Amino acid sequence: MNKTAIISKADLLQHWLGHRNLTRRTIEKFPEAELFNYSIGEMRTFAELVKEILSIAVPGLNGIVNNQIDPYNHDLPLHTKDALLAQWDKDTPILIDLYNQIPEERFHEDFNLFGEYKFPIIHNLLYFIDNEIHHRAQGFVYLRGLGIEPPFFWDRA
Amino acid sequence: MNKTAIISKADLLQHWLGHRNLTRRTIEKFPEAELFNYSIGEMRTFAELVKEILSIAVPGLNGIVNNQIDPYNHDLPLHTKDALLAQWDKDTPILIDLYNQIPEERFHEDFNLFGEYKFPIIHNLLYFIDNEIHHRAQGFVYLRGLGIEPPFFWDRA
Repeated sequence: MNKTAIISKADLLQHWLGHRNLTRRTIEKFPEAELFNYSIGEMRTFAELVKEILSIAVPGLNGIVNNQIDPYNHDLPLHTKDALLAQWDKDTPILIDLYNQIPEERFHEDFNLFGEYKFPIIHNLLYFIDNEIHHRAQGFVYLRGLGIEPPFFWDRA
Repeated sequence: MNKTAIISKADLLQHWLGHRNLTRRTIEKFPEAELFNYSIGEMRTFAELVKEILSIAVPGLNGIVNNQIDPYNHDLPLHTKDALLAQWDKDTPILIDLYNQIPEERFHEDFNLFGEYKFPIIHNLLYFIDNEIHHRAQGFVYLRGLGIEPPFFWDRA
């Protein structure tokens, strides 16, 4: 099934990496304490949302690439802003490497992600990105609630 | 330039429409008054964020399809929840019709959207969707701040 690729495999990775740049800058904007103790309406803290993003991206890709079906674990032992950022930076090249290992023809195959989400791989990947945009936007509101200006949404460099 | 379409033109439209379903349900969850007067940290109200989404989607597509470069106007005269939802429902079939009129080969052409954002059309379309996810997520925080449970993020039906 060849059609004009309105979004190619390489395009989607670049799109994701642009979002990761912005999410990283969002983490950086938080004061250390509020990253781990501030939230609104009994939601999770931004650190917890970031740990969710970290526990989906590389572990999810790892499952897809290696056909391993393990449950996810959002409870990562990252207790400082530096630890979160270091994990973020450690994960980015691994993410790129794993993503590049998925053959194009597999993107429309079903994969039972984390043993719970049996969808075409492309849907799972779009979900990873959408979920990151979603939780980062919640971080933007937390920053505003703290009187801190978030990064520019359109800046992905 | 034909590659395997990891995301086809039809796929991207379905993805967008799924997000629109969720955004519509998010609007529905707001009490009338809070839709227009509640926000956090001096941000815009959710009604204003929804008007931004409305003023980008159909007007943006209209510009792309008809090669018209008009500035955007977020200040739509929609002052009730019913009016917002009615405009949303009026716009969805127009959005589908306009989107379907963009030939696949144009998706990688630059277009000077609203006379300000000169990027490939596919980037502008992804921006429309990402921006909707972003502002809807902020609506989710407002709902939590009001003690109201938002819709399920994963439910796009």
